[in-house]
Amino acid sequence: MDKKYVYSFSEGNKEMRNLLGGKGANLAEMSGLDLPVPQGFTITTEACNRFYEENSQLWDSLLTEIDQHLEELEKIQGKKFSDPKNPLLVSVRSGAVFSMPGMMDTILNLGLNDEAVKGVAESTENERFAYDSYRRFIQMFSDVAMEVPKALFETKIDEAKEAKGVKDDTELTAEDLKELVEEFKAIYKEEQGEEFPQDPKTQLTYAIEAVFRSWNNPRANIYRKLNNIPDDLGTAVNVQSMVYGNMGDTSGTGVAFSRNPSTGENKLFGEYLMNAQGEDVVAGIRTPQPISHLEDIMPDIYNQFKDIADKLEHHYKDMQDLEFTIERGKLYILQTRNGKRTAHAALNVAVDLVEEGLITKEDAVLRVEPSSLDQLLHPTFNKDDLDSAVAIAKGLAASPGAASGKIYFTAEEVKAASEKGEDCILVRQETSPEDIEGMISAKGILTARGGMTSHAAVVARGMGKCCVAGASEVHVDERAKTMKVKDITLTEGEIISIDGSTGAIYKGEIKKENPKMTGNFGKYMQWVDETRNLKVRTNADNPRDAKQALEFGAEGIGLCRTEHMFFQEDRLPAVREMILSSSVDQRQNALDKLLPFQEEDFYEIYKIMTGLPVTVRLLDPPLHEFLPTKKEEMETLAEDMNLSYDEIVSKVEELHEVNPMLGHRGCRLAVTYPEIYRMQARAIINAALRIKEEGADIIPEIMIPLVGDIKEMKYVKEEIIDEIEKVFEEKGINVEYHIGTMIEVPRAALMADEIAQEAEFFSFGTNDLTQMTFGFSRDDAGKFLPEYSEKKIYPQDPFAVLDQAGVGQLVKLAAEKGKSANPNIHMGICGEHGGEPQTVEFCNNIGLDYVSCSPYRVPIARAAAAQAAIKANSEDIHIDK
Amino acid sequence: MDKKYVYSFSEGNKEMRNLLGGKGANLAEMSGLDLPVPQGFTITTEACNRFYEENSQLWDSLLTEIDQHLEELEKIQGKKFSDPKNPLLVSVRSGAVFSMPGMMDTILNLGLNDEAVKGVAESTENERFAYDSYRRFIQMFSDVAMEVPKALFETKIDEAKEAKGVKDDTELTAEDLKELVEEFKAIYKEEQGEEFPQDPKTQLTYAIEAVFRSWNNPRANIYRKLNNIPDDLGTAVNVQSMVYGNMGDTSGTGVAFSRNPSTGENKLFGEYLMNAQGEDVVAGIRTPQPISHLEDIMPDIYNQFKDIADKLEHHYKDMQDLEFTIERGKLYILQTRNGKRTAHAALNVAVDLVEEGLITKEDAVLRVEPSSLDQLLHPTFNKDDLDSAVAIAKGLAASPGAASGKIYFTAEEVKAASEKGEDCILVRQETSPEDIEGMISAKGILTARGGMTSHAAVVARGMGKCCVAGASEVHVDERAKTMKVKDITLTEGEIISIDGSTGAIYKGEIKKENPKMTGNFGKYMQWVDETRNLKVRTNADNPRDAKQALEFGAEGIGLCRTEHMFFQEDRLPAVREMILSSSVDQRQNALDKLLPFQEEDFYEIYKIMTGLPVTVRLLDPPLHEFLPTKKEEMETLAEDMNLSYDEIVSKVEELHEVNPMLGHRGCRLAVTYPEIYRMQARAIINAALRIKEEGADIIPEIMIPLVGDIKEMKYVKEEIIDEIEKVFEEKGINVEYHIGTMIEVPRAALMADEIAQEAEFFSFGTNDLTQMTFGFSRDDAGKFLPEYSEKKIYPQDPFAVLDQAGVGQLVKLAAEKGKSANPNIHMGICGEHGGEPQTVEFCNNIGLDYVSCSPYRVPIARAAAAQAAIKANSEDIHIDK
Repeated sequence: MDKKYVYSFSEGNKEMRNLLGGKGANLAEMSGLDLPVPQGFTITTEACNRFYEENSQLWDSLLTEIDQHLEELEKIQGKKFSDPKNPLLVSVRSGAVFSMPGMMDTILNLGLNDEAVKGVAESTENERFAYDSYRRFIQMFSDVAMEVPKALFETKIDEAKEAKGVKDDTELTAEDLKELVEEFKAIYKEEQGEEFPQDPKTQLTYAIEAVFRSWNNPRANIYRKLNNIPDDLGTAVNVQSMVYGNMGDTSGTGVAFSRNPSTGENKLFGEYLMNAQGEDVVAGIRTPQPISHLEDIMPDIYNQFKDIADKLEHHYKDMQDLEFTIERGKLYILQTRNGKRTAHAALNVAVDLVEEGLITKEDAVLRVEPSSLDQLLHPTFNKDDLDSAVAIAKGLAASPGAASGKIYFTAEEVKAASEKGEDCILVRQETSPEDIEGMISAKGILTARGGMTSHAAVVARGMGKCCVAGASEVHVDERAKTMKVKDITLTEGEIISIDGSTGAIYKGEIKKENPKMTGNFGKYMQWVDETRNLKVRTNADNPRDAKQALEFGAEGIGLCRTEHMFFQEDRLPAVREMILSSSVDQRQNALDKLLPFQEEDFYEIYKIMTGLPVTVRLLDPPLHEFLPTKKEEMETLAEDMNLSYDEIVSKVEELHEVNPMLGHRGCRLAVTYPEIYRMQARAIINAALRIKEEGADIIPEIMIPLVGDIKEMKYVKEEIIDEIEKVFEEKGINVEYHIGTMIEVPRAALMADEIAQEAEFFSFGTNDLTQMTFGFSRDDAGKFLPEYSEKKIYPQDPFAVLDQAGVGQLVKLAAEKGKSANPNIHMGICGEHGGEPQTVEFCNNIGLDYVSCSPYRVPIARAAAAQAAIKANSEDIHIDK
Repeated sequence: MDKKYVYSFSEGNKEMRNLLGGKGANLAEMSGLDLPVPQGFTITTEACNRFYEENSQLWDSLLTEIDQHLEELEKIQGKKFSDPKNPLLVSVRSGAVFSMPGMMDTILNLGLNDEAVKGVAESTENERFAYDSYRRFIQMFSDVAMEVPKALFETKIDEAKEAKGVKDDTELTAEDLKELVEEFKAIYKEEQGEEFPQDPKTQLTYAIEAVFRSWNNPRANIYRKLNNIPDDLGTAVNVQSMVYGNMGDTSGTGVAFSRNPSTGENKLFGEYLMNAQGEDVVAGIRTPQPISHLEDIMPDIYNQFKDIADKLEHHYKDMQDLEFTIERGKLYILQTRNGKRTAHAALNVAVDLVEEGLITKEDAVLRVEPSSLDQLLHPTFNKDDLDSAVAIAKGLAASPGAASGKIYFTAEEVKAASEKGEDCILVRQETSPEDIEGMISAKGILTARGGMTSHAAVVARGMGKCCVAGASEVHVDERAKTMKVKDITLTEGEIISIDGSTGAIYKGEIKKENPKMTGNFGKYMQWVDETRNLKVRTNADNPRDAKQALEFGAEGIGLCRTEHMFFQEDRLPAVREMILSSSVDQRQNALDKLLPFQEEDFYEIYKIMTGLPVTVRLLDPPLHEFLPTKKEEMETLAEDMNLSYDEIVSKVEELHEVNPMLGHRGCRLAVTYPEIYRMQARAIINAALRIKEEGADIIPEIMIPLVGDIKEMKYVKEEIIDEIEKVFEEKGINVEYHIGTMIEVPRAALMADEIAQEAEFFSFGTNDLTQMTFGFSRDDAGKFLPEYSEKKIYPQDPFAVLDQAGVGQLVKLAAEKGKSANPNIHMGICGEHGGEPQTVEFCNNIGLDYVSCSPYRVPIARAAAAQAAIKANSEDIHIDK
């Protein structure tokens, strides 16, 4: 027994998060701060990993270690397991390194058995409480640890209430509950084939195993996938003496944030229920009271709690999310953690904490998860439209944002409808972890029950998804697929709008507007920009996107694709004429028709981006993409082109490719048909000269795609330069321009030292690079990647998060080789990964000059770049997820 | 003028081959050996490269340097350019680093003009000779340097002969020739718009430029491509005093090898023509006399020549290919070089030279171009069939081997027919460089004219292609597409057989037989095996190939593909049943049917390869490859499978892939359907256990294709091991086995250190690795790779010769990473490149354990491996191409 697997709260602290989990580390920390924490101990995450190595069994030496800590706890509490007078009761809770709300399972009141229940009744002088606790324990233990269906117990309770003719659980008497306990034990025996375990240590062993097992339940797996949490972190288990919020009217329980997690406002924010256990609040079954109400009824407790919240906020230098219980007028803190918050709140808290002098600007920059900024970039309702709209109901403003969509009443239906392209609102009585996929697909979430800390509210805030919760006026009938508000009945598929910032619910659709980056958001982004080294450009191939990106702070265009221009209706005939040409002259003719269109395209974009670099990628896709494949379309084309149908068919067949991804595309088109790139180069330069003649500045960057060799690069580059020189001669004026290449073929990365001799810039095309390096195409990988994810072969989707281990090696190698051969080379990334925070950090660390991403990801990339710069400067700063 | 661009013969030697070209270096060397070499100077290959940098112009300082060397030469020869008494005449010849027969152009008699011709007439007292030389010069200069069509001149000669009523050129008198000279100059003026240049220096400048330009003519480009000679080597130009073989009956010219280039026999081998210039011999217009005949008519000259040949052979320690001219009874050596030879001759010469004590065994191993061994592995005619066959004619045994095929009379027709899969014999009056592509496509070549050193003979020997040349009994009518022999007329498409080792021509087809590796070939291969470190395995997936490879010395199977087994008629229904299964049970059922077939496949191969390693690659192609795509076939399948047509269509559509190369294949199939590999693993182990029970040895190696990550490898490996353990348990016996992976996805190479932890061997699948690293698929690259080759972007086809610079980096990296993580790992290559000598050398140098190639390339790989080992030991040994 070399390794220590169990720590008393008094042995730990907040730095031991990896070992003790978030909850355990914070309980230990609070214990050290002498806050009123019920004592207990934590079984480490390492034990969880060993548990899986031991074939999902607890091993002997661990059991011994647990026994020793139990004895110690018994001494501290002055209670003993199974003591018929004054038994020790504990809670068993999971506690992973990163908090995973709703995902993990908890067992309360462990230690109760037929003897101990009597002891509790005696010591609390409250028999009803004792048996209520016992029946809750049996139910929870059976459900969580032994997988006995919860419904079996619920039915018994319903029967008991019906028999007594009462409505609420609280109306059941001690005797009723005693009977229920017997019935519950019978259910357990029926289902498990053995008696309900009476030995508290057996109960504890089962419970710990259940927590460890729950680390691998499907819901937990989905959450980790969604949040990029590695599967091998494991969870710790916290065993803690029970305190009771359900011991009568001077008892209660609640959860609260030290500031408002929706807005960041510096004011206690939370809710509580008197005479209840914690699970009652989180589950959202009874609608709780706002925390401010506590000030009225128990001012001392309220003030004590407020002081503790302040103390913890100062101690952790961040907004805290606390759980508390009042047991017969005495306050206990059961948990604290850095509170999850909306991006809006995160920004406001971060800026406020800087202004309160608690943290530095750099700390503040690190306090906002870059990808959460996405929430702030989503539309809000148009003010005018909103003024003329009448809300049909109001719920809690659980997660800000505005959404309109068709209503659906199950997660499956939302998923199916949104896959068809519909905007959907998930409407539920209340949500549960099973609804996660529907919540991901929905534009917004509306629940009839549950408070600000209900499942729907917490998860929606985590996702940055608009949510109105606890709209009690709304009657949801999930089976009938209707929601009723007063006299209005809405059925599946009807459209509503919800405002997650006000809680208002509207019938029909309301126009939405883009938000501005002002106030604390503006201040935050200013700090971000002061901090980062990496430039952030955007991928845009039309003026609308370019303008949007500029508003979001883009510092140029890193990727302007030209094929979308070719696909436009007014150009397609000329494009097809070019493809169907049987001679260079014919092809040139068709290209001459395209030239003015392309020139105008570039001119419009340049006008918006004056003074900034604009990288235009020359034509990339294989030519067959521009030809029709259906018979009728080919017939029409034949007519239009004055060719026979057979000629069209034969051209289409000639251009057919077995593997279009690995075919005749990119600069390979220019090697066979140099006139195409010449036309594009001419259009780029013509447009730039017009800008110059208007007295503005633009520096065109011409990007050659799919290069794999220096000679290929050189050949294509020389064709382009030759054409540009012609334009300069014709017009009699010059403009500065740069020619570079995409690094997207693995060979280009390997040969980057040579290619860099001919390239003024590299832009990493990580989409293609990922496909070719892994050897699977995005179009086809759908058939097996989900299985790879399930079988944990690839922890993250390599098309979403750059595969640093594999593809990243090539990027890094190419960057090093490129710089060594050409110290002036300018480098960036322009794949889908360019706005993904982990990838941005990688790009920063390997010394790229910029990332380029879609307009809506520009602010995210800016923040990620700033965080990367800070982290690179001090590798050991602690970052909360 | 820092750099020296011109060297007198007396300034050079044979080590300066890169600078002076092969011909120039050897002229200088012979000059140093005091052999009778007409003096002159060489303009370097560096001048050729600079010529292209100077926009295909000679630059001033070079012209000055040439002038200085001209003056020197005038002094040595006691003659002067343009001297009306005794003018200096020179030849201008190309001379690249590697000799390129028939590819480059030569100009003789340069220096002649209207004045000088009189001087020559006077000094030689032979006016006819003088004007014959002049008209030849005008013709050659116009054709070669100025691209005036040769036919214009030929027509004038024909007209002159007709007017005189004579048949031979030699019957034209001095007066006739004087008239022709005037007519030729008129043609020149007509075509060029200026007078024929009278200034010898202008003539020389034009001629040198023409040689440099000819470096880049299409024929030269094709030859270099065929022989893997880099385009940037450039050619030198040799300017040499003329000597004349056409000065009457005591003059002559010839070419000879110091040994027989077809068989290696140690006896002068060659031919000569009296009263002729060198071009007459090489062009094959008059059929020359065998060199032995010279001994009879000019014994002194013959003996002098024989001594020189011996001296040069000892000096160069290799068989020499000499050109000589006899001018009025005096012998001059115009050229020597290591003689091109058949593989058969190369082997015999190499073994003889070792036995003569001239070279070592290692030298001998280096003396045979490994890929030329291919010639010896081709079939010869079956003795019995040959005995009963009657030759219809006999020609020269110009290049050994046996071939049967349909006759075609143009290179284009041969190319077209052989692309359709026909075996063809190219039948020509005589071949010219324009015929090269047809010669490549043909199984054999038959010419009616030309000797052993004619174009057809030289080129065919270089290619190792069977050739019968100078079959004068055969009357070829290329327009009528017939060949007549006596009373037999054969028309296009009829079949003949030719024996390049005897010169015999047969009507119809004759059975062929594989040769044995005995005699000098056996001795050579024994030296090869004593020398090499790299093992050589074969790619074989049936007993026939395995047996053939074993005879050729294979040391195991490096790649046994299993998909070919799946495609066989008796298995395909079960394969399709497996693919169309809708449940695991159904799939297992179908796999159970395949199991006995696969087991038998492996068993039969193991029986042949007992004692040797056999690497079986598990199923690789995407499943849709096994399904039909045509309507009728799908209907039949539906019936057979008891499914509806629609179900088949929908399955086919479901399995369709956009990029099958990057799709659901390789071990990805096993991640989704582990039962497939389990069946294959079971079949492998069952078969191996049967071999073991029979008392023999076999070590199965199980190869998992398309791995990209250690977790993927681990997952699939665990499935396989689990199945194997089951088999062991069921049968109660064990067998040693190894599990490894192909490295064919770029990511696998990058992650090789991790993957090596789970792999006992790596086999580099360079086919896929090349496709993915370059980002083009072999199926699609045909659309642009020819253009890449033409535009000199890729000097070699990366699917034929491993791209060491790019793909090779990944192979090397993976080998290093693999070894560092797992020092016991065994590594080889199994792509198409495995039998390609340059690639074999690369594999040797990066420390792989073996290469694996198709059976017929096994001896080539063995020889290449031996050469690689020798070269690695002494990097500076000089190897002739």
